[in-house]
Amino acid sequence: MDIEVLAVGGYNEFGRNMTAVRCGKEIVIFDMGIRLDSLMMNPDVEMENTHSLDLISMGVIPDDTIMNSLEGSVKAIVLSHGHLDHIGAVPKLAHRYNAPIIASPYTIELVRQHIEGEKKFGVNNKLYALKAGQQYTISPTLTIEFVATQHSIIDTVTPVLHTPRGAIVYALDFKLDRTPVVGEPPDFARLQKLGKEGVLCLIAEVTKIRESGRCPSEQIAKNMLQSVISSYEDDPSAIVISTFASHVARVKTIAECVHSIGRKPILLGRSMERFCATAESMKYVRFPEGTSIFGNRRTVERTLRRVMKAKRDEYVPIVTGHQGEPGSILTRIAEKDVPYKIEKGDKVMISAQLIPNDMNRAQRYRMFSLLGGQGARIFDELHVSGHAYCEDHYELLQMLNPTYVIAAHGGLDITSNYVDLAKDFGYMLNKDFFLMANGQKQKLA
Amino acid sequence: MDIEVLAVGGYNEFGRNMTAVRCGKEIVIFDMGIRLDSLMMNPDVEMENTHSLDLISMGVIPDDTIMNSLEGSVKAIVLSHGHLDHIGAVPKLAHRYNAPIIASPYTIELVRQHIEGEKKFGVNNKLYALKAGQQYTISPTLTIEFVATQHSIIDTVTPVLHTPRGAIVYALDFKLDRTPVVGEPPDFARLQKLGKEGVLCLIAEVTKIRESGRCPSEQIAKNMLQSVISSYEDDPSAIVISTFASHVARVKTIAECVHSIGRKPILLGRSMERFCATAESMKYVRFPEGTSIFGNRRTVERTLRRVMKAKRDEYVPIVTGHQGEPGSILTRIAEKDVPYKIEKGDKVMISAQLIPNDMNRAQRYRMFSLLGGQGARIFDELHVSGHAYCEDHYELLQMLNPTYVIAAHGGLDITSNYVDLAKDFGYMLNKDFFLMANGQKQKLA
Amino acid sequence: MDIEVLAVGGYNEFGRNMTAVRCGKEIVIFDMGIRLDSLMMNPDVEMENTHSLDLISMGVIPDDTIMNSLEGSVKAIVLSHGHLDHIGAVPKLAHRYNAPIIASPYTIELVRQHIEGEKKFGVNNKLYALKAGQQYTISPTLTIEFVATQHSIIDTVTPVLHTPRGAIVYALDFKLDRTPVVGEPPDFARLQKLGKEGVLCLIAEVTKIRESGRCPSEQIAKNMLQSVISSYEDDPSAIVISTFASHVARVKTIAECVHSIGRKPILLGRSMERFCATAESMKYVRFPEGTSIFGNRRTVERTLRRVMKAKRDEYVPIVTGHQGEPGSILTRIAEKDVPYKIEKGDKVMISAQLIPNDMNRAQRYRMFSLLGGQGARIFDELHVSGHAYCEDHYELLQMLNPTYVIAAHGGLDITSNYVDLAKDFGYMLNKDFFLMANGQKQKLA
Amino acid sequence: MDIEVLAVGGYNEFGRNMTAVRCGKEIVIFDMGIRLDSLMMNPDVEMENTHSLDLISMGVIPDDTIMNSLEGSVKAIVLSHGHLDHIGAVPKLAHRYNAPIIASPYTIELVRQHIEGEKKFGVNNKLYALKAGQQYTISPTLTIEFVATQHSIIDTVTPVLHTPRGAIVYALDFKLDRTPVVGEPPDFARLQKLGKEGVLCLIAEVTKIRESGRCPSEQIAKNMLQSVISSYEDDPSAIVISTFASHVARVKTIAECVHSIGRKPILLGRSMERFCATAESMKYVRFPEGTSIFGNRRTVERTLRRVMKAKRDEYVPIVTGHQGEPGSILTRIAEKDVPYKIEKGDKVMISAQLIPNDMNRAQRYRMFSLLGGQGARIFDELHVSGHAYCEDHYELLQMLNPTYVIAAHGGLDITSNYVDLAKDFGYMLNKDFFLMANGQKQKLA
Repeated sequence: MDIEVLAVGGYNEFGRNMTAVRCGKEIVIFDMGIRLDSLMMNPDVEMENTHSLDLISMGVIPDDTIMNSLEGSVKAIVLSHGHLDHIGAVPKLAHRYNAPIIASPYTIELVRQHIEGEKKFGVNNKLYALKAGQQYTISPTLTIEFVATQHSIIDTVTPVLHTPRGAIVYALDFKLDRTPVVGEPPDFARLQKLGKEGVLCLIAEVTKIRESGRCPSEQIAKNMLQSVISSYEDDPSAIVISTFASHVARVKTIAECVHSIGRKPILLGRSMERFCATAESMKYVRFPEGTSIFGNRRTVERTLRRVMKAKRDEYVPIVTGHQGEPGSILTRIAEKDVPYKIEKGDKVMISAQLIPNDMNRAQRYRMFSLLGGQGARIFDELHVSGHAYCEDHYELLQMLNPTYVIAAHGGLDITSNYVDLAKDFGYMLNKDFFLMANGQKQKLA
Repeated sequence: MDIEVLAVGGYNEFGRNMTAVRCGKEIVIFDMGIRLDSLMMNPDVEMENTHSLDLISMGVIPDDTIMNSLEGSVKAIVLSHGHLDHIGAVPKLAHRYNAPIIASPYTIELVRQHIEGEKKFGVNNKLYALKAGQQYTISPTLTIEFVATQHSIIDTVTPVLHTPRGAIVYALDFKLDRTPVVGEPPDFARLQKLGKEGVLCLIAEVTKIRESGRCPSEQIAKNMLQSVISSYEDDPSAIVISTFASHVARVKTIAECVHSIGRKPILLGRSMERFCATAESMKYVRFPEGTSIFGNRRTVERTLRRVMKAKRDEYVPIVTGHQGEPGSILTRIAEKDVPYKIEKGDKVMISAQLIPNDMNRAQRYRMFSLLGGQGARIFDELHVSGHAYCEDHYELLQMLNPTYVIAAHGGLDITSNYVDLAKDFGYMLNKDFFLMANGQKQKLA
Repeated sequence: MDIEVLAVGGYNEFGRNMTAVRCGKEIVIFDMGIRLDSLMMNPDVEMENTHSLDLISMGVIPDDTIMNSLEGSVKAIVLSHGHLDHIGAVPKLAHRYNAPIIASPYTIELVRQHIEGEKKFGVNNKLYALKAGQQYTISPTLTIEFVATQHSIIDTVTPVLHTPRGAIVYALDFKLDRTPVVGEPPDFARLQKLGKEGVLCLIAEVTKIRESGRCPSEQIAKNMLQSVISSYEDDPSAIVISTFASHVARVKTIAECVHSIGRKPILLGRSMERFCATAESMKYVRFPEGTSIFGNRRTVERTLRRVMKAKRDEYVPIVTGHQGEPGSILTRIAEKDVPYKIEKGDKVMISAQLIPNDMNRAQRYRMFSLLGGQGARIFDELHVSGHAYCEDHYELLQMLNPTYVIAAHGGLDITSNYVDLAKDFGYMLNKDFFLMANGQKQKLA
Repeated sequence: MDIEVLAVGGYNEFGRNMTAVRCGKEIVIFDMGIRLDSLMMNPDVEMENTHSLDLISMGVIPDDTIMNSLEGSVKAIVLSHGHLDHIGAVPKLAHRYNAPIIASPYTIELVRQHIEGEKKFGVNNKLYALKAGQQYTISPTLTIEFVATQHSIIDTVTPVLHTPRGAIVYALDFKLDRTPVVGEPPDFARLQKLGKEGVLCLIAEVTKIRESGRCPSEQIAKNMLQSVISSYEDDPSAIVISTFASHVARVKTIAECVHSIGRKPILLGRSMERFCATAESMKYVRFPEGTSIFGNRRTVERTLRRVMKAKRDEYVPIVTGHQGEPGSILTRIAEKDVPYKIEKGDKVMISAQLIPNDMNRAQRYRMFSLLGGQGARIFDELHVSGHAYCEDHYELLQMLNPTYVIAAHGGLDITSNYVDLAKDFGYMLNKDFFLMANGQKQKLA
């Protein structure tokens, strides 16, 4: 069977991930994401009201017009996890394909909410929730399987496409965390078994390939946060913490640490509500007793006013804004645009790393300067990554032993380190190891 | 006589330079500048309508309330050159002192224009234009002398305060350029003579002390620009160039290079008009025949429309916006907000370096991305600095042989390199070599 | 009483720490260290055979000839902890002073061994072991007290000199680790009490002041090591680990992690033996059963040969060489100069960070390249720092509330961040906050 | 005709360049270089006494055993210029091929000298000197043409292989310098004509593709050196200058600048003699009157002794050692290992940039520290690159308009910028634009 991989988006760049695999006449699409920094370049654009072709020309969503060059029909749209760079373009692109959207239950629920918010297109694709460990029959020749993995959002899976010529493993994004805080560790047994059954191709993210060793477990982030937060148990200063709203496990950890020093966690911000309340209602997590969540702008302000009236050290706002995003709660606190006042010695903790682009760098610098000017003490990078490091990739290659390897999710400058790693396993560039660029097709022959 | 130096602004920071020297009961102020990056933090603030106390609390202008701690009366406000970080706070602060403002003719003219634009305060200090090489008698005991120097703006001087105990040399900012493009080289003979007569104290900028060797002459910038621009003599692509509007010598160089390949220079932008038209009318420079200058917003747009209608390769717009400043011409070109269209292969040349802060980095990155997306080829850093490098400082110390040295114009992290240099001359920290912080007084005893 | 601080070594530089405090006619010296990178510049120099004046001119040991400028006599030499940059010059300088050497028991034992190795000078100063929590009466007016603290070597103390005008706290080096792996946490209660009793002067290291937040606890290093090492429990590859031989707590952690996956730890290298065997014999630590320690060159080689003959995955060599030092065990493994062979897939773990200078960078790069070329997988930076971060300094200042602050242990470029921190507490540079340079005196008046 | 490119060395790495092109049954080899940093890893290896297979396994020379996989016979070995990373492996590898070595006259002379020094292999290949602008008929179907170009060594050419399917242009290394100091500018007319006749494939170096704009002309280096050196015309301090011995044009510039301030240039060092005396005897350059050249170790020392006895400011030693190489003259001056004494205020000028690897960084740091400790003032980077910048590559692509492009001479991390550039011209990765790895073959089909 003729098998071909089409790099639609996210190759030689970060963001707007989309990959198509054609097996004979049948096509499976993996992910439909957006590129956030392209969106930041055009601050006046409202996603939900903008046409897909305009978003393509701005580089915000993948240029899927190239899909016409594939001969075959799309049978399934498979989503790996709920981050915007993997699902954000679904409302803009999915309706063009007469195919179901398959994702893990939490991811499906996020997609459902996105589609509801879309104002330009009607998206009627069937949504199918497939749990990790389960399979879905796409056609007599193709089956999709979800293998449990870990990442910085809950319910992330590694989709595996079973073809007559072997498995195609789509490892975007993943982390081989043996001691996660929410959910199960990656299914090592299944990955090893896949390796023995025969993997035709591994498509792997390379985001953190340049980091030596292993990505630290989420448990380490928990240890760090617990250590720092508990050191202020007897300090009357206020504490404000910001992290990725989508990183539900981290939010849970923070809420628990806060709870353990006798303060009440309050989750604030629209996306904080979307990700965390959804996760709680779906029973993925349980936040400590006394935790409250508010997303609505007016409710957020009312809550902060109430906190200011109470003793400030009774509550810990857990808020959006770790990158200094305009309009986020932490940025608005820095700008004195909400009824919450920073006092000298207050602790502002960032459980995230800088997403390294110049726009974020500037927004953060401004936010930190404003907060610092009001007397806040800044705690940055109380964080561990959600992406595989070099030795995690080594382990994955060792387990899967794929015939072909394709590197994705990063510029070629980063990807070049993956070349070195693959060389150690005997792969050779352009023979059985491929670096691709958006728009390019690669036959697996 | 009791002599004391008060660090008002620009110590352990960049910008808002202001230093006061008290000799007995008489005080002389050097510079009154603003800090631009503090202003950028507060994008909604309009300088001309804001009260000085608010600007002080934002860190935009020096906190001169500290002046009350000096016992004596201000006899003169001396300005070294026309950059905003040296004169920008004059309209906000000068009226508090009953003293004349003394500066070189070009600088005085710029100050006059600033004062006219001020809407909050009436500034009635006498403006006195003192040429390089001339002296001004402040009082029976104090005289101010202007020694010619070079910098990235024309008519920069090194003010020297003659006191009964020797000269106090205020070397902010300077460059020992032996082959300048406009004006005369620094007056080495006079500096050496001052050294022999006796210098009590040198107050020196340290901005580029970490660069080894000598700051390249402005002639090198001319060579570089000529080389690059002339290589496109036969290329039909459009060329757009941006540089510091205040760097009149550079603008002249660019205009001449453009003229030499048979294209017409058009200087565009409000500040381009202010600095360059003023300089030309005062006969500091003559731009090549056919050069035109437009500052008014509507005129700029009309001119660009006309250029687009003509052959684009007949004109070269020389514009503001090298840092990607919002509202500047180059930024507006990038945003397609003016009637000038970038085409594939057009050359955009930046004859400036990034002013290193995160805000500029982000603005530039965005501007370059937008221009690149339209097909522009970017030429960055066709530039040499206007600040003394390490060996220029070495030469200055050697010539002046001052009793005391005070480092200014930069964070302590930078200044620490000046400590090493001074140590080679036998100075010892806190004995005869001082690092100061805003608000601090230092007796020269 | 007239009190004066003399910066002898380690000011505006890293290494060769030495500070003298004169109280009236009595002088107390804190630390006598060496500067390792100066030693690296002169690879042929053998410390034990070189005269102190030569070592001074090479910048290896502090220039204590300046001590003559202090009027008074040295009453005590107080050592904070056992690192070479704090005690390494004792064999070269201590004999010049007729005064006892006071240090914690472990430090005293290390000093004793150093003095024995010295071949140029006879050092007969009395060695006095003072435990954390105890006091030593120097004279009727002066008492020294050791306050327990944490650092990257066991038995580190914060010496406090009690004078008639208040306490002088010498906080080089320290870490406010609430959950250490060996020893007790810093004595917060005592530090707070000192603050209330009155601290005249705090002399503080600033090494890591530029790091935001708190220095992670040694417990975090343990978590990280445990997580990575245990992930290879079922992997047949060999594991080799290198860390600071002096970091006994870390060595203990590593040995325990190794033990927990069923392998036997073998500590190898001369300094590994000196620090760890000494610590064990003094009962500071107990290594897991089955741990062995070998320092002698021939024994090390014999042991490695034995390991190669056994199953390589039964033992884990814990070795010197994390910086790629010439002659260290790990470097020799990389150079194939010992009978231990790296095989494809073996794990080499570095539980240390690069000590940032260009010499180390080059040595490490070479070592990693050689190891990588033999198939080793490199795990770098399984480490946390032993130095206070910004918020630890904040807490210390808050507890001690000293009248004067002096920054030490780092270049002025680093120290400048401490200026900002001190400013938040109301200190002003050169008034009650001092940056000093070697050879400089500062009266506390 | 079947045409295939084999990446032998210098792909996804820096150094040991070697590329083979097979046209039907005939093979042409381009360059046979060494990788210097691999050699630095093994400081005890003597090139001339080491077998090629050992050098291959150390990564010092290209692994040409892969040549066996090409079906055909080698008809010519073509060398682009005389740098070691392009010709250094000739003595080790050329004898395996029964083919002439073709290079420009200066390069051929350097190769001849290298072969003479070789002690392991007898190299009897015919040496053929082909001038820029000339052609050499390899076979009825293949012709080689040398197009004049510029680089940091004289007599560099761009070899062009004419095949029945069009030209193959081997652009390693090059610089589009319109105003060179020695030799003619690149032959733009011929390059444009080649583009019109039809270029099948461009193999291009990418070393400096990440630099925006154009590489500054060698004329700019001359301007910079003249400006700095002449500023010390009246300064009695000694001046010592180091640059690349192979950069004959630069050495000439320096000698002329030195001559112009009335001092006598003395070129010192074995390689200084090899490159410069050879160039002068072949009439490529003429050094100013009074210039002398000494390479022999004893003569160098005798000369330095003589200079020390004369007035030190009558001579300017121009020496090897800009990277701090062990054994080079400048390093030995720093180590006080030659009879030349640095005095306080002497100027040491480096007309080179750091070749960025950690080994050089450390050696240089040590050398600068030792020199600085003796009072030398350091002038670094009086230099311009010899490699094309981004817009030079743009111009080359525009002129040649090749059907296929292959990026060489750099890691993939660097090469990725060339991908972006090529994309602007419509090339697509893996379709008509190739990134290759050593050992890989690419058909041009």
